[in-house]
Amino acid sequence: MQNFEYCNRTKIIFGKETEARVGAELAKYAEDNDGTSFRVLLHHSGGSSVRSGLLERVKNSLKSAGFSWVELDGVKPNPRLSKVHEGVALCKKEKLGFILAVGGGSVIDSAKAIAVGALYDGDVWDFYDRKKTAVHALPVATVLTIPAAGSESSISSVITNEAGPWKRPIDAECIRPVFSVMNPELTYSLPAYQTACGVADMLAHIMERYFTKEPHVELTDELCEGAMRVIIRNARRVFSGGEADYNARAELMWAGALAHNNLLSTGRIGDWGSHLIEHELSAVFDIAHGAGLSIVFPAWIKYNIKEDTPRLARFAAKVWGVDGAFYDHEQAALEGVFRMKNFFRSIGLPVSFGDAELDTGKIPEMAERAVKFGPLGNYRKLYAGDVEAILRLAAG
Amino acid sequence: MQNFEYCNRTKIIFGKETEARVGAELAKYAEDNDGTSFRVLLHHSGGSSVRSGLLERVKNSLKSAGFSWVELDGVKPNPRLSKVHEGVALCKKEKLGFILAVGGGSVIDSAKAIAVGALYDGDVWDFYDRKKTAVHALPVATVLTIPAAGSESSISSVITNEAGPWKRPIDAECIRPVFSVMNPELTYSLPAYQTACGVADMLAHIMERYFTKEPHVELTDELCEGAMRVIIRNARRVFSGGEADYNARAELMWAGALAHNNLLSTGRIGDWGSHLIEHELSAVFDIAHGAGLSIVFPAWIKYNIKEDTPRLARFAAKVWGVDGAFYDHEQAALEGVFRMKNFFRSIGLPVSFGDAELDTGKIPEMAERAVKFGPLGNYRKLYAGDVEAILRLAAG
Repeated sequence: MQNFEYCNRTKIIFGKETEARVGAELAKYAEDNDGTSFRVLLHHSGGSSVRSGLLERVKNSLKSAGFSWVELDGVKPNPRLSKVHEGVALCKKEKLGFILAVGGGSVIDSAKAIAVGALYDGDVWDFYDRKKTAVHALPVATVLTIPAAGSESSISSVITNEAGPWKRPIDAECIRPVFSVMNPELTYSLPAYQTACGVADMLAHIMERYFTKEPHVELTDELCEGAMRVIIRNARRVFSGGEADYNARAELMWAGALAHNNLLSTGRIGDWGSHLIEHELSAVFDIAHGAGLSIVFPAWIKYNIKEDTPRLARFAAKVWGVDGAFYDHEQAALEGVFRMKNFFRSIGLPVSFGDAELDTGKIPEMAERAVKFGPLGNYRKLYAGDVEAILRLAAG
Repeated sequence: MQNFEYCNRTKIIFGKETEARVGAELAKYAEDNDGTSFRVLLHHSGGSSVRSGLLERVKNSLKSAGFSWVELDGVKPNPRLSKVHEGVALCKKEKLGFILAVGGGSVIDSAKAIAVGALYDGDVWDFYDRKKTAVHALPVATVLTIPAAGSESSISSVITNEAGPWKRPIDAECIRPVFSVMNPELTYSLPAYQTACGVADMLAHIMERYFTKEPHVELTDELCEGAMRVIIRNARRVFSGGEADYNARAELMWAGALAHNNLLSTGRIGDWGSHLIEHELSAVFDIAHGAGLSIVFPAWIKYNIKEDTPRLARFAAKVWGVDGAFYDHEQAALEGVFRMKNFFRSIGLPVSFGDAELDTGKIPEMAERAVKFGPLGNYRKLYAGDVEAILRLAAG
């Protein structure tokens, strides 16, 4: 087991009708910080949270607690740098001191970027372009509507700069939300495709952490495997008429947060190659992140089939129910990939370029761009040629 | 799934030689708190941490970081109120601003009690006697030497008032350690009995959370079951000549912290009846907490065998490897208890009053005292008669 540090300070407020507590939590936060007074940037997409009445309930809660706010809507999936710039300008002009994101990972990631930019004189893209390291940010809190990105308790933010297009991540403790409100009922009305993309995203967050060459991480392995089984089982429930099954939605929502809060990577480094490859798919085709992952991940495993095959066989056994007594590890591992693809397809996700009607002609260009900052991944270092080979496996 | 709040702010610094970082972490803490300056109460048992040289290394680390301290040693297992009073007086007299506990659960629990008492004008026992609620405390950090109590990242402290004797717990967010240093190497030299007691304690912390009537807690169940399997497997390794097996010791140490940090109770209330019954054993016989638990818990399950038998059978299957296809749930559950007792015995723990040579004549008195604040537990409410019956089952 490798040495590690672990700390997650995000306070989770989980359950039915919890959005009504946002104002009170904000007041508690202010009190715990020497009675700081601030106005809030209320950041959202302007879409479903308005239509569902959620935003109105959040505003009522803020109002009852005596807070005032400025609104910024219009966040899109694969959140854009231009919107972040708008938010930064607004925070500076209106002297806002707190950012409340109401939405899914895109809104939260956008809010985190604004939080960093609001305390910086230059262009916030500097942080995503690795010219600067983020150490200060306005406090961010969230009301989560889409379990997927795990951004509600993570230190990550991923932003797309339209100029490239480049899709780039940052990781910084200062952007971890101070609290997150998670009401599974808010996810009943999610379109099936968005639910499915969220499922792929949270599974991928765990798989990135799970694929490691560190052999002594039993507890972390067990936690990962258990969480993946729970996600798969409860996704099946939701997709078998359980759209409004509170408990199934709750399991997915809570698993989505744990998937990305770094508890599941204690004692080892993860891989993250598939995520970085996927970012190229999203940047070039503007495909949903989860759909990109369901295309890339099975191909990544296939490409690595000779790379610690017993571990891939264990993954197949513990997560996908492949008989652990399978006589050949490689066959077991491939059966696991087969079941994974079946599962993704069964919830309506693409598992190849063909399924998503993506242009395979862009593969060489994407492979080059993916390795801009050097080779990807840790389970096995991937160079441009490897990335191209993985994307070719995903083409079919 | 029930609504819940979850937050654990303790920063974990885990791995080899991490005790050398104590001073630097303390300096970081001071810096994050507006450069607060403080002197430290260095609290320990005066035993193995002195002999092993650990205390010296911790002092060197404090010195290098520019901190000065006052020492208070002499903490005993089942930590005493009289020692807490000493610490409180010392903090007040010397105007100490931070408490560093170097030791196991007893030292940490004592440190937490001192932290509360230092900011209170009356007798700190008021909090344990439920006359007062703890909301303010000096900050506490720990260098853990015995994985067991989980106190290194928990909100709990249990103190014994010799006057009774009464052994009573408090739970308060303000006593959660701000950071904890966990080096598994420090546990190589633990006496086997202390290692075993720690194993029973961490298993018990998970079982208390696991036994619930809430049927929809799949993720939490999987995390609990995985953690229990890891503890059992790695305890076997340590007790099969693996005293200095870093990875086995590391799995136990990390599992011990997770066992008691409340992640494993999200979405449900736990039971805690067995713990409260055990407190009477420790108070009356001054037996180690873990040894008391290995006596009480099997009896508690047996007494509840008709109480949601399928859940007890699942526990037997998932944690103790009892064939899940067992035709009779009750038989499966009893087979689980049998294996649990075998396991405890195999690592040198008592599973009955007889094993530990305890006087069964005290049972009625202990049963009465256990319910002083009302019936115990949630899985099934236990009154004095129930507690007596459980202790009689454990008498054997």
